[in-house]
Amino acid sequence: MTEPVAERVLVSFEPDGAPARQVRVPAGVTLFDAASWNGIAVDSTCGGHGTCRKCVVRVVEGDVPVSRLDPRAFGADELRAGWRLACMAPARADVRVAVPPLVTRPKAATVGVGRQVILRPAVQKRCVQLTEATLADQRTDLERLLAVLDDLEVRADLHALRNLPRALRSADHRVTAVLVDDVLVDVEPGDTSDRRFGVAFDLGTTTVVATLLDLGTGTPVAVSSMLNPQQPFGGDVITRISATMMDPDALGRLTALAHSCLDQLVGEVCATGEVRRHEVYEIALAGNATMTHIALGIDPEPLGVAPFVMASRSFDGMRAADLGVAVHPGAAAYAFPALGAYVGGDIVAGALASGMDRDKRVRLFVDVGTNCEIVLSDGDRILATAAPAGPAFEGAQIRCGMRAAPGAIESVKISDDDVALQVIGDVAPVGLCGSGLVDAVAALVQAGLLDASGRLLAADVAATVAPGLAGRLRQVGQERVFVLHGDIYLSQRDVRELQFAKAAIATGWRLLAGELGIEPADIQQVLLAGSFGSYLSPTSAVRIGLVPGVPVTRIVSAGNVAGEGAKMALLSLRERAAAQALLEEVRYVELSDRPDFNDRFIDELSFPT
Amino acid sequence: MTEPVAERVLVSFEPDGAPARQVRVPAGVTLFDAASWNGIAVDSTCGGHGTCRKCVVRVVEGDVPVSRLDPRAFGADELRAGWRLACMAPARADVRVAVPPLVTRPKAATVGVGRQVILRPAVQKRCVQLTEATLADQRTDLERLLAVLDDLEVRADLHALRNLPRALRSADHRVTAVLVDDVLVDVEPGDTSDRRFGVAFDLGTTTVVATLLDLGTGTPVAVSSMLNPQQPFGGDVITRISATMMDPDALGRLTALAHSCLDQLVGEVCATGEVRRHEVYEIALAGNATMTHIALGIDPEPLGVAPFVMASRSFDGMRAADLGVAVHPGAAAYAFPALGAYVGGDIVAGALASGMDRDKRVRLFVDVGTNCEIVLSDGDRILATAAPAGPAFEGAQIRCGMRAAPGAIESVKISDDDVALQVIGDVAPVGLCGSGLVDAVAALVQAGLLDASGRLLAADVAATVAPGLAGRLRQVGQERVFVLHGDIYLSQRDVRELQFAKAAIATGWRLLAGELGIEPADIQQVLLAGSFGSYLSPTSAVRIGLVPGVPVTRIVSAGNVAGEGAKMALLSLRERAAAQALLEEVRYVELSDRPDFNDRFIDELSFPT
Repeated sequence: MTEPVAERVLVSFEPDGAPARQVRVPAGVTLFDAASWNGIAVDSTCGGHGTCRKCVVRVVEGDVPVSRLDPRAFGADELRAGWRLACMAPARADVRVAVPPLVTRPKAATVGVGRQVILRPAVQKRCVQLTEATLADQRTDLERLLAVLDDLEVRADLHALRNLPRALRSADHRVTAVLVDDVLVDVEPGDTSDRRFGVAFDLGTTTVVATLLDLGTGTPVAVSSMLNPQQPFGGDVITRISATMMDPDALGRLTALAHSCLDQLVGEVCATGEVRRHEVYEIALAGNATMTHIALGIDPEPLGVAPFVMASRSFDGMRAADLGVAVHPGAAAYAFPALGAYVGGDIVAGALASGMDRDKRVRLFVDVGTNCEIVLSDGDRILATAAPAGPAFEGAQIRCGMRAAPGAIESVKISDDDVALQVIGDVAPVGLCGSGLVDAVAALVQAGLLDASGRLLAADVAATVAPGLAGRLRQVGQERVFVLHGDIYLSQRDVRELQFAKAAIATGWRLLAGELGIEPADIQQVLLAGSFGSYLSPTSAVRIGLVPGVPVTRIVSAGNVAGEGAKMALLSLRERAAAQALLEEVRYVELSDRPDFNDRFIDELSFPT
Repeated sequence: MTEPVAERVLVSFEPDGAPARQVRVPAGVTLFDAASWNGIAVDSTCGGHGTCRKCVVRVVEGDVPVSRLDPRAFGADELRAGWRLACMAPARADVRVAVPPLVTRPKAATVGVGRQVILRPAVQKRCVQLTEATLADQRTDLERLLAVLDDLEVRADLHALRNLPRALRSADHRVTAVLVDDVLVDVEPGDTSDRRFGVAFDLGTTTVVATLLDLGTGTPVAVSSMLNPQQPFGGDVITRISATMMDPDALGRLTALAHSCLDQLVGEVCATGEVRRHEVYEIALAGNATMTHIALGIDPEPLGVAPFVMASRSFDGMRAADLGVAVHPGAAAYAFPALGAYVGGDIVAGALASGMDRDKRVRLFVDVGTNCEIVLSDGDRILATAAPAGPAFEGAQIRCGMRAAPGAIESVKISDDDVALQVIGDVAPVGLCGSGLVDAVAALVQAGLLDASGRLLAADVAATVAPGLAGRLRQVGQERVFVLHGDIYLSQRDVRELQFAKAAIATGWRLLAGELGIEPADIQQVLLAGSFGSYLSPTSAVRIGLVPGVPVTRIVSAGNVAGEGAKMALLSLRERAAAQALLEEVRYVELSDRPDFNDRFIDELSFPT
């Protein structure tokens, strides 16, 4: 589906007593979001719903229409002078905005790739002292409570109503209201306002990571991870989707496994962090489309067959209980929305954590894996696609391949006459994992033992090119191999597998660059994301042509950006709005129906010379 | 709490090709609601959310502001000519409105006290044919569905998303969307649009009634009732509240009993009506505040002790599952909001079904029971109060009292020398129920055997006043009694009990009349509501002074108006809006802290002479 990329406008913020800052945001974004996304603090207690009337700014230059809520906050003279509620003011054209001094100093936390996030979690606590009812003032318990939360528009859920009468009367009417966005989910006796937590999940096909966050301070309290227990149904998303197609019970079992996995991790982080489960009021989840569909119990079959259709991009109004997670009964669940069946919520979370939407540089984001997701931004426009790299990076289909586990060769360096290996866990090598595979191939290209077409040299030629290594070139069965250590070798067919994988990825970013009209050399930063991306040697990645041939200092290992994005979503409603805006901003490019794909792919099979 | 009663405005509707009609509504009500509440049809498919843009009307006289959605529906010339979306147009002053001819003929049903309800249930079904996705059109299943529901603003719940992919692909993309208000709760393969049902509950302290409604036609399909199984915890709300105060487990058990009762009735009406449980997409419930709180699992204790405070007036966003009712998993539950701890949702439902808010006559609504609720309208203003009548009408505290069950004397007529009894079930009389008690006392007053102060005459005096009956005046223990049949009698103390009950009620309506500045003789209609009210003899009620001394033709037995109100809520979102508006319109008058209450009460103890 080809959609026009959202236009951007320039907003110049002039905070009181601080230097002005210019930011570019998609046209139509509110001034409040534009400020928040760029770390410029604007007062607010309601979180951008237009109810607290605290996010006042003055439009100094440019035209911002008066919203329907502005007249409640400002007189006619003030409106004429440009005063607006920032959360209701869309930036439709370039605009200059004065920001008054802050009433409260906002807290912030550093998350993601150096992202400064102003804390405004969906989960809020307010400790309030209410007056007792009398025959002359028979307002209901709820009316009494909402009257003191008059900067918010709140609706109460049943759990909160059930606890409200006793909480009030057991604590001399001093209670703490627990709000998740605009829902009152509980009323706790006394002051519990320093206890509010959330759990951020990175729900990977291979590994699942949970981080317990203190939502008051933004600090992580505990982290835990485990292998995704759905592994017996297949190592990648396609095999798991296939399982649901062949066995009508498989979806239910996969969903139950996802739930028990998430719930077990919550138990672990709560135990480590000394936090009770009911003090966790929200969870956030970043996963690919298949993992997210399955975790919510939604049939993933249409994701696995052309034309690759999701049930939905977004999953709003979900609860932690819908994901099988036993925390506070009113806890909400935020799941990152997806751009496409193969550019899922994990990539949107990663793009958010990497600031793909607010950096003027030309940046390439690559999450390397069985399915490789690629995002390219020229500072204005953002494109995304998915490349089916196959399982080579997971060590599958590789003769001596294995996962990145103890005994896996994770790094290979080849000198004139020796091969230096780095093995996970400092044990004897057992096999070759993805990063070792890339290193080995890159080193053989460098040593000249592998030609540009990916063919291992014949023994006689090798003896002249690299006499100290030629002895490692042997024949195993029908195949030429290069021996790394003992009986661990790299075979000709392994090289072919890697060529296919890297060609798919390189075709992806080359086609995106073509769409944007830029050359690979224009790329100013390459972000390698995902757990595999973090281990990959930038030098090797460049050498085999997996990433563009830019100086290695411009290649950054971004780490687990999906998990970082999930944390950001818990810490800030504004960052969630930014994630939602990414759905509009990023244009998804489907490669599978492009007529030029095959030609480009064949071109990319060779190694750079 | 004393609040100003909402001001009313006059709206004159001029439907195309039909005579004009004037209606009076509270200021601020939308033109769409004003029309709907008075049976004047205006086109609409979205149900008043401003999204379908079909409810166009033209303001001919008077000023109605342009809403924020009007410019989406009309050009500047049309706006100047007075065109407005009726659902977004508040009537703030008298106004004259032209209604264009209808595009679709709305269905209507007669419910309540002769109320014509235009069908617009929250539950909607739409059968739609979608196109299949292609690589060139990878819109998600949900996007594809919502695109053809573009007159609505819909959010999908998880259950609907779980069913969506398979429903589409199992039925050649021809599916039926099931909507409850603005939530997509299911997507069913094929065309199921003629199957949509709801269950209306009258959740009484004594009896619970369920009516299964066909929401497409407005017709009742089946009715079932049972005694409230909470009876072992006490016969009235106060004893049940006391139970929760004495035993920490009682609330849980009472709630579970309410749930199993509602669920059993659903099973019965579904079996009778040949409707599957999952074809029931919404339930509505009218109950007093205590029954509603307990059914939702909310502590009722503060309702039972001064200052009589509810947890909340309204319970929005509830689901059938929250009331323990197993119907469609996405089914919503609507509970009538309450005016006060003792003027609950049952009375709001009853006032709605009786049209207390849209009748120009001076009308008195009395729901006679242990707690007696009284509503008085002078055609403009509406007041309500509760009178603690005590258990006399239930037959409790009455020597030979019993419930209205087989064997109960329900009617008593006394002639010069005989007593004629009507007994429930045509069996030998066993005791006296409430209506029989009222009849007996009224008849003795009429016969002159009971004086105005409520004293049974001495035997010698009686022999001269009514020689044919004097022999029935006997002494039982310390007490004077009047024998009705065999060993069934009415005692002096029974008379006192009834005097207390009727004095409480009469004090209630007299004080309300005083507040409105009207005389009881001005009352043009008296509605006797509730199951007890239906059996009460109007003549007897007037004779003992339970209701004002108006001609008996003006006294109407309104029947189970609470249940009728619950049906109306299922059949029309507009009627729900009217119920909500009643909360603003009706002023609740608390009697328990009035300094003049005791004086008035003592005045009312006597029988009219």
